Amino acid sequence: MELLKNRILTDGKVIGNSVLKVDNFLNHQLDIKLFNEMGKEFRRLFEGEAITKILTVEASGIAIASIAAQYFDVPVVFAKKYLGNNMDSETYEAEVFSFTKNQSFRIRVSKKYISHDDRVLIIDDFLANGRAILGMSQIVRQAGARVVGAGIAIEKAFQNGRAVVEQEGIRVKSLAIIESMEGGKLVFKD
Amino acid sequence: MELLKNRILTDGKVIGNSVLKVDNFLNHQLDIKLFNEMGKEFRRLFEGEAITKILTVEASGIAIASIAAQYFDVPVVFAKKYLGNNMDSETYEAEVFSFTKNQSFRIRVSKKYISHDDRVLIIDDFLANGRAILGMSQIVRQAGARVVGAGIAIEKAFQNGRAVVEQEGIRVKSLAIIESMEGGKLVFKD
Repeated sequence: MELLKNRILTDGKVIGNSVLKVDNFLNHQLDIKLFNEMGKEFRRLFEGEAITKILTVEASGIAIASIAAQYFDVPVVFAKKYLGNNMDSETYEAEVFSFTKNQSFRIRVSKKYISHDDRVLIIDDFLANGRAILGMSQIVRQAGARVVGAGIAIEKAFQNGRAVVEQEGIRVKSLAIIESMEGGKLVFKD
Repeated sequence: MELLKNRILTDGKVIGNSVLKVDNFLNHQLDIKLFNEMGKEFRRLFEGEAITKILTVEASGIAIASIAAQYFDVPVVFAKKYLGNNMDSETYEAEVFSFTKNQSFRIRVSKKYISHDDRVLIIDDFLANGRAILGMSQIVRQAGARVVGAGIAIEKAFQNGRAVVEQEGIRVKSLAIIESMEGGKLVFKD
Protein backbone atom coordinates (compact mmCIF):
# COMPACT_ATOMS: atom_id res chain seq x y z
CA MET A 1 0.00 0.00 0.00
CA GLU A 2 1.84 3.06 -1.34
CA LEU A 3 0.18 5.53 1.05
CA LEU A 4 1.43 3.65 4.10
CA LYS A 5 4.90 3.01 2.65
CA ASN A 6 5.29 6.69 1.83
CA ARG A 7 4.17 7.64 5.31
CA ILE A 8 6.70 5.26 6.85
CA LEU A 9 9.42 6.84 4.68
CA THR A 10 8.35 10.34 5.71
CA ASP A 11 7.60 9.87 9.39
CA GLY A 12 9.04 6.54 10.48
CA LYS A 13 12.31 6.43 12.39
CA VAL A 14 14.68 3.51 12.13
CA ILE A 15 16.53 2.74 15.34
CA GLY A 16 19.43 0.33 15.05
CA ASN A 17 18.87 -2.39 12.44
CA SER A 18 15.49 -3.71 13.52
CA VAL A 19 13.34 -1.15 15.33
CA LEU A 20 10.94 1.05 13.39
CA LYS A 21 9.33 3.87 15.33
CA VAL A 22 5.99 4.97 13.90
CA ASP A 23 4.47 6.64 16.93
CA ASN A 24 3.89 9.80 14.92
CA PHE A 25 0.98 8.26 13.02
CA LEU A 26 0.41 4.62 13.95
CA ASN A 27 0.72 3.77 17.62
CA HIS A 28 0.78 6.85 19.84
CA GLN A 29 -0.55 9.66 17.69
CA LEU A 30 -3.06 8.06 15.32
CA ASP A 31 -3.76 9.30 11.79
CA ILE A 32 -7.38 8.20 11.52
CA LYS A 33 -7.65 9.21 7.85
CA LEU A 34 -4.75 6.91 7.04
CA PHE A 35 -6.40 4.18 9.12
CA ASN A 36 -9.52 4.52 6.97
CA GLU A 37 -7.48 3.93 3.83
CA MET A 38 -5.83 0.96 5.55
CA GLY A 39 -9.26 -0.39 6.52
CA LYS A 40 -10.45 -0.21 2.89
CA GLU A 41 -7.30 -2.01 1.78
CA PHE A 42 -7.81 -4.80 4.34
CA ARG A 43 -11.35 -5.19 3.00
CA ARG A 44 -9.99 -5.45 -0.56
CA LEU A 45 -7.29 -7.96 0.45
CA PHE A 46 -9.84 -10.22 2.16
CA GLU A 47 -12.54 -9.71 -0.45
CA GLY A 48 -15.02 -12.51 -0.75
CA GLU A 49 -14.17 -13.89 2.69
CA ALA A 50 -17.05 -14.17 5.13
CA ILE A 51 -15.82 -12.51 8.31
CA THR A 52 -17.92 -12.19 11.46
CA LYS A 53 -15.46 -10.64 13.90
CA ILE A 54 -12.16 -8.81 14.07
CA LEU A 55 -9.75 -9.75 16.85
CA THR A 56 -6.82 -7.61 17.93
CA VAL A 57 -4.74 -7.09 21.06
CA GLU A 58 -4.39 -4.01 23.23
CA ALA A 59 -3.22 -1.34 22.87
CA SER A 60 -1.85 -0.42 19.44
CA GLY A 61 -4.05 -2.80 17.47
CA ILE A 62 -7.32 -1.36 18.76
CA ALA A 63 -7.62 1.77 16.64
CA ILE A 64 -6.53 0.08 13.40
CA ALA A 65 -8.96 -2.80 13.99
CA SER A 66 -11.83 -0.49 14.95
CA ILE A 67 -11.55 1.72 11.90
CA ALA A 68 -11.15 -1.34 9.65
CA ALA A 69 -14.23 -2.96 11.20
CA GLN A 70 -16.37 -0.29 9.56
CA TYR A 71 -15.56 -1.82 6.15
CA PHE A 72 -16.40 -5.33 7.34
CA ASP A 73 -19.45 -4.33 9.33
CA VAL A 74 -18.49 -6.57 12.25
CA PRO A 75 -17.66 -6.02 15.93
CA VAL A 76 -14.11 -5.89 17.24
CA VAL A 77 -12.85 -7.89 20.21
CA PHE A 78 -9.55 -6.95 21.74
CA ALA A 79 -7.52 -9.43 23.74
CA LYS A 80 -6.52 -8.01 27.10
CA LYS A 81 -2.98 -7.97 28.39
CA TYR A 82 -3.82 -6.41 31.72
CA LEU A 83 -6.52 -7.71 34.00
CA GLY A 84 -9.23 -5.28 34.99
CA ASN A 85 -11.51 -5.85 37.94
CA ASN A 86 -14.43 -6.58 35.66
CA MET A 87 -12.84 -9.26 33.50
CA ASP A 88 -14.90 -12.42 33.16
CA SER A 89 -13.38 -15.40 34.92
CA GLU A 90 -14.22 -17.62 31.94
CA THR A 91 -11.59 -16.73 29.36
CA TYR A 92 -9.61 -18.15 26.49
CA GLU A 93 -5.95 -17.46 27.15
CA ALA A 94 -2.60 -17.68 25.45
CA GLU A 95 0.98 -16.97 26.43
CA VAL A 96 2.78 -14.54 24.14
CA PHE A 97 6.52 -14.06 24.24
CA SER A 98 7.63 -10.54 23.40
CA PHE A 99 11.11 -10.38 21.89
CA THR A 100 11.24 -6.60 22.23
CA LYS A 101 10.46 -6.77 25.93
CA ASN A 102 12.15 -10.14 26.45
CA GLN A 103 9.28 -11.46 28.55
CA SER A 104 6.07 -13.40 28.26
CA PHE A 105 2.64 -12.00 28.83
CA ARG A 106 -0.75 -13.60 28.90
CA ILE A 107 -3.56 -12.42 26.64
CA ARG A 108 -7.17 -13.12 27.45
CA VAL A 109 -10.55 -12.99 25.74
CA SER A 110 -13.83 -13.64 27.50
CA LYS A 111 -15.44 -16.86 26.26
CA LYS A 112 -18.59 -14.85 25.57
CA TYR A 113 -17.07 -12.94 22.69
CA ILE A 114 -15.83 -15.65 20.37
CA SER A 115 -18.16 -18.46 19.47
CA HIS A 116 -17.57 -21.63 17.50
CA ASP A 117 -19.24 -20.29 14.37
CA ASP A 118 -17.17 -17.11 14.24
CA ARG A 119 -14.92 -16.47 11.25
CA VAL A 120 -12.24 -14.23 12.66
CA LEU A 121 -9.92 -11.77 10.99
CA ILE A 122 -6.93 -10.96 13.19
CA ILE A 123 -5.59 -7.42 12.80
CA ASP A 124 -2.42 -6.00 14.32
CA ASP A 125 -0.04 -3.11 13.78
CA PHE A 126 3.19 -5.14 13.40
CA LEU A 127 4.26 -8.59 12.35
CA ALA A 128 7.80 -9.32 13.53
CA ASN A 129 8.20 -12.67 15.26
CA GLY A 130 4.55 -13.54 14.92
CA ARG A 131 3.96 -14.46 18.53
CA ALA A 132 1.03 -12.09 19.13
CA ILE A 133 -0.74 -13.41 16.01
CA LEU A 134 -0.08 -17.00 17.11
CA GLY A 135 -1.47 -16.26 20.57
CA MET A 136 -4.61 -14.76 19.09
CA SER A 137 -5.06 -17.69 16.72
CA GLN A 138 -4.74 -20.09 19.67
CA ILE A 139 -7.54 -18.19 21.38
CA VAL A 140 -9.74 -18.41 18.27
CA ARG A 141 -9.10 -22.15 18.06
CA GLN A 142 -9.86 -22.68 21.74
CA ALA A 143 -13.27 -21.23 20.91
CA GLY A 144 -13.64 -23.73 18.07
CA ALA A 145 -13.83 -20.81 15.64
CA ARG A 146 -11.90 -20.24 12.44
CA VAL A 147 -9.11 -17.76 11.66
CA VAL A 148 -9.80 -16.38 8.20
CA GLY A 149 -6.50 -14.55 8.05
CA ALA A 150 -4.21 -11.97 9.59
CA GLY A 151 -4.19 -8.38 8.37
CA ILE A 152 -1.01 -6.56 9.33
CA ALA A 153 -0.11 -2.90 8.93
CA ILE A 154 3.68 -3.29 8.88
CA GLU A 155 5.54 -6.57 8.40
CA LYS A 156 9.24 -6.93 9.11
CA ALA A 157 10.12 -9.55 6.51
CA PHE A 158 13.65 -9.92 7.93
CA GLN A 159 12.18 -11.52 11.04
CA ASN A 160 10.46 -14.89 10.87
CA GLY A 161 6.88 -13.93 11.76
CA ARG A 162 5.32 -14.74 8.41
CA ALA A 163 6.80 -18.25 8.32
CA VAL A 164 5.68 -18.91 11.90
CA VAL A 165 2.13 -17.74 11.20
CA GLU A 166 1.77 -19.37 7.77
CA GLN A 167 2.93 -22.66 9.26
CA GLU A 168 -0.28 -22.57 11.27
CA GLY A 169 -2.24 -22.34 8.04
CA ILE A 170 -3.01 -18.65 8.48
CA ARG A 171 -3.12 -16.42 5.42
CA VAL A 172 -1.14 -13.21 6.04
CA LYS A 173 -1.74 -9.93 4.24
CA SER A 174 0.47 -6.96 5.11
CA LEU A 175 0.02 -3.39 3.94
CA ALA A 176 3.74 -2.59 4.00
CA ILE A 177 6.48 -5.19 4.01
CA ILE A 178 9.96 -4.12 5.07
CA GLU A 179 12.72 -6.25 3.68
CA SER A 180 15.57 -4.57 5.48
CA MET A 181 16.46 -1.62 7.68
CA GLU A 182 20.25 -2.18 7.73
CA GLY A 183 22.19 0.99 8.39
CA GLY A 184 18.97 2.90 8.92
CA LYS A 185 17.90 2.49 5.29
CA LEU A 186 14.34 1.25 4.76
CA VAL A 187 13.93 -1.23 1.91
CA PHE A 188 10.39 -2.33 1.09
CA LYS A 189 9.49 -5.57 -0.66
CA ASP A 190 8.66 -4.69 -4.29
CA MET B 1 -28.30 9.56 24.14
CA GLU B 2 -31.17 7.09 24.00
CA LEU B 3 -29.35 4.52 21.86
CA LEU B 4 -26.56 4.16 24.41
CA LYS B 5 -28.90 4.17 27.42
CA ASN B 6 -31.01 1.44 25.84
CA ARG B 7 -27.92 -0.59 25.08
CA ILE B 8 -26.76 -0.26 28.70
CA LEU B 9 -30.19 -1.44 29.86
CA THR B 10 -30.11 -4.40 27.47
CA ASP B 11 -26.50 -5.52 27.77
CA GLY B 12 -24.98 -3.81 30.81
CA LYS B 13 -24.55 -5.77 34.04
CA VAL B 14 -24.67 -4.08 37.41
CA ILE B 15 -22.37 -5.63 39.98
CA GLY B 16 -22.90 -4.51 43.55
CA ASN B 17 -23.99 -0.89 43.88
CA SER B 18 -21.34 0.82 41.81
CA VAL B 19 -19.84 -1.38 39.10
CA LEU B 20 -21.33 -1.42 35.61
CA LYS B 21 -20.01 -4.06 33.27
CA VAL B 22 -20.33 -3.13 29.59
CA ASP B 23 -17.70 -5.40 28.08
CA ASN B 24 -20.31 -6.82 25.69
CA PHE B 25 -20.28 -3.66 23.56
CA LEU B 26 -18.02 -0.96 24.99
CA ASN B 27 -14.71 -2.14 26.36
CA HIS B 28 -13.88 -5.69 25.37
CA GLN B 29 -16.18 -6.50 22.48
CA LEU B 30 -16.71 -3.22 20.64
CA ASP B 31 -19.89 -2.31 18.76
CA ILE B 32 -18.36 -0.05 16.13
CA LYS B 33 -21.76 0.98 14.71
CA LEU B 34 -22.78 2.23 18.12
CA PHE B 35 -19.42 4.02 18.41
CA ASN B 36 -20.19 5.82 15.16
CA GLU B 37 -23.46 7.11 16.58
CA MET B 38 -21.59 8.14 19.74
CA GLY B 39 -19.01 9.95 17.64
CA LYS B 40 -21.71 11.92 15.83
CA GLU B 41 -23.26 12.83 19.16
CA PHE B 42 -19.92 14.05 20.56
CA ARG B 43 -19.57 16.22 17.44
CA ARG B 44 -23.05 17.66 18.06
CA LEU B 45 -22.37 18.29 21.75
CA PHE B 46 -19.16 20.17 20.98
CA GLU B 47 -20.54 21.92 17.91
CA GLY B 48 -18.87 25.20 17.07
CA GLU B 49 -15.78 24.39 19.12
CA ALA B 50 -12.50 24.45 17.25
CA ILE B 51 -10.79 21.16 18.12
CA THR B 52 -7.40 20.13 16.78
CA LYS B 53 -6.78 16.87 18.62
CA ILE B 54 -8.52 14.17 20.61
CA LEU B 55 -6.74 12.79 23.66
CA THR B 56 -7.67 9.54 25.38
CA VAL B 57 -5.95 6.91 27.51
CA GLU B 58 -5.28 3.26 26.77
CA ALA B 59 -6.95 0.87 26.44
CA SER B 60 -10.73 1.28 26.51
CA GLY B 61 -10.76 4.91 25.38
CA ILE B 62 -8.90 4.24 22.14
CA ALA B 63 -11.68 2.81 19.97
CA ILE B 64 -14.29 5.35 21.08
CA ALA B 65 -11.87 8.23 20.49
CA SER B 66 -10.73 6.89 17.11
CA ILE B 67 -14.23 6.44 15.72
CA ALA B 68 -15.26 9.86 17.08
CA ALA B 69 -12.20 11.49 15.51
CA GLN B 70 -13.70 10.84 12.07
CA TYR B 71 -16.40 13.41 12.83
CA PHE B 72 -13.87 15.99 14.03
CA ASP B 73 -11.33 15.27 11.31
CA VAL B 74 -8.43 15.37 13.76
CA PRO B 75 -5.77 12.90 14.93
CA VAL B 76 -6.05 10.95 18.17
CA VAL B 77 -3.31 10.73 20.77
CA PHE B 78 -3.57 8.11 23.45
CA ALA B 79 -1.79 8.49 26.77
CA LYS B 80 0.23 5.40 27.60
CA LYS B 81 -0.02 3.55 30.87
CA TYR B 82 2.62 0.98 30.04
CA LEU B 83 6.06 1.88 28.79
CA GLY B 84 7.12 0.36 25.50
CA ASN B 85 10.72 0.21 24.39
CA ASN B 86 10.13 2.87 21.80
CA MET B 87 8.57 5.54 24.01
CA ASP B 88 10.15 8.96 23.67
CA SER B 89 12.08 10.02 26.72
CA GLU B 90 10.61 13.53 26.49
CA THR B 91 7.09 13.13 27.84
CA TYR B 92 4.34 14.98 29.65
CA GLU B 93 3.28 12.85 32.59
CA ALA B 94 0.61 12.69 35.25
CA GLU B 95 -0.15 10.42 38.16
CA VAL B 96 -3.64 8.93 38.11
CA PHE B 97 -5.16 7.19 41.11
CA SER B 98 -7.51 4.37 40.22
CA PHE B 99 -10.18 3.77 42.85
CA THR B 100 -11.23 0.49 41.24
CA LYS B 101 -7.68 -0.88 41.36
CA ASN B 102 -6.74 1.04 44.52
CA GLN B 103 -3.39 2.10 43.08
CA SER B 104 -1.75 4.91 41.18
CA PHE B 105 -0.41 4.66 37.70
CA ARG B 106 1.48 7.10 35.55
CA ILE B 107 0.20 8.18 32.15
CA ARG B 108 2.54 9.60 29.52
CA VAL B 109 2.30 11.46 26.25
CA SER B 110 5.30 12.26 24.07
CA LYS B 111 5.95 16.02 23.99
CA LYS B 112 5.87 15.80 20.20
CA TYR B 113 2.18 15.10 20.03
CA ILE B 114 0.61 17.96 21.94
CA SER B 115 1.71 21.46 21.09
CA HIS B 116 0.88 24.77 22.74
CA ASP B 117 -1.63 25.76 20.06
CA ASP B 118 -3.63 22.53 20.30
CA ARG B 119 -7.27 22.67 21.35
CA VAL B 120 -7.84 19.26 22.86
CA LEU B 121 -11.02 17.27 23.35
CA ILE B 122 -10.54 14.55 25.95
CA ILE B 123 -12.60 11.40 25.35
CA ASP B 124 -13.00 8.45 27.68
CA ASP B 125 -15.36 5.54 28.25
CA PHE B 126 -16.24 6.25 31.90
CA LEU B 127 -16.37 9.20 34.28
CA ALA B 128 -16.46 8.00 37.88
CA ASN B 129 -13.98 9.76 40.16
CA GLY B 130 -12.57 11.87 37.37
CA ARG B 131 -8.92 11.11 38.00
CA ALA B 132 -8.11 9.91 34.47
CA ILE B 133 -9.65 13.06 32.97
CA LEU B 134 -7.73 15.23 35.45
CA GLY B 135 -4.50 13.46 34.59
CA MET B 136 -5.07 14.01 30.89
CA SER B 137 -5.93 17.67 31.44
CA GLN B 138 -2.69 18.11 33.43
CA ILE B 139 -0.81 16.71 30.44
CA VAL B 140 -2.56 19.13 28.07
CA ARG B 141 -1.70 22.04 30.36
CA GLN B 142 1.92 20.96 30.66
CA ALA B 143 2.02 21.36 26.89
CA GLY B 144 0.58 24.87 27.21
CA ALA B 145 -2.43 23.72 25.19
CA ARG B 146 -6.11 24.13 25.95
CA VAL B 147 -8.70 21.54 27.03
CA VAL B 148 -11.87 22.29 25.10
CA GLY B 149 -13.89 19.74 27.04
CA ALA B 150 -14.33 16.15 28.07
CA GLY B 151 -16.61 13.81 26.16
CA ILE B 152 -17.63 10.78 28.19
CA ALA B 153 -19.57 7.70 27.14
CA ILE B 154 -20.94 6.74 30.58
CA GLU B 155 -20.95 8.98 33.64
CA LYS B 156 -21.62 7.68 37.11
CA ALA B 157 -23.28 10.72 38.63
CA PHE B 158 -23.29 9.15 42.09
CA GLN B 159 -19.51 9.48 42.20
CA ASN B 160 -17.85 12.88 42.29
CA GLY B 161 -16.04 12.89 38.94
CA ARG B 162 -18.05 15.68 37.33
CA ALA B 163 -17.49 18.06 40.26
CA VAL B 164 -13.76 17.29 40.32
CA VAL B 165 -13.41 17.88 36.57
CA GLU B 166 -15.66 20.95 36.37
CA GLN B 167 -13.70 22.52 39.23
CA GLU B 168 -10.76 22.58 36.81
CA GLY B 169 -12.87 24.60 34.40
CA ILE B 170 -13.46 21.68 32.06
CA ARG B 171 -16.81 21.34 30.32
CA VAL B 172 -18.14 17.79 30.61
CA LYS B 173 -20.57 16.19 28.18
CA SER B 174 -21.68 12.62 28.82
CA LEU B 175 -23.75 10.44 26.52
CA ALA B 176 -25.38 8.47 29.34
CA ILE B 177 -25.55 9.64 32.95
CA ILE B 178 -26.32 7.09 35.62
CA GLU B 179 -27.85 8.52 38.74
CA SER B 180 -27.95 5.32 40.74
CA MET B 181 -27.43 1.58 40.52
CA GLU B 182 -28.64 0.73 44.04
CA GLY B 183 -29.90 -2.81 44.34
CA GLY B 184 -28.88 -3.53 40.75
CA LYS B 185 -31.44 -1.10 39.34
CA LEU B 186 -30.10 1.39 36.78
CA VAL B 187 -31.55 4.88 37.05
CA PHE B 188 -30.51 7.37 34.36
CA LYS B 189 -30.58 11.13 34.76
CA ASP B 190 -33.65 12.21 32.75
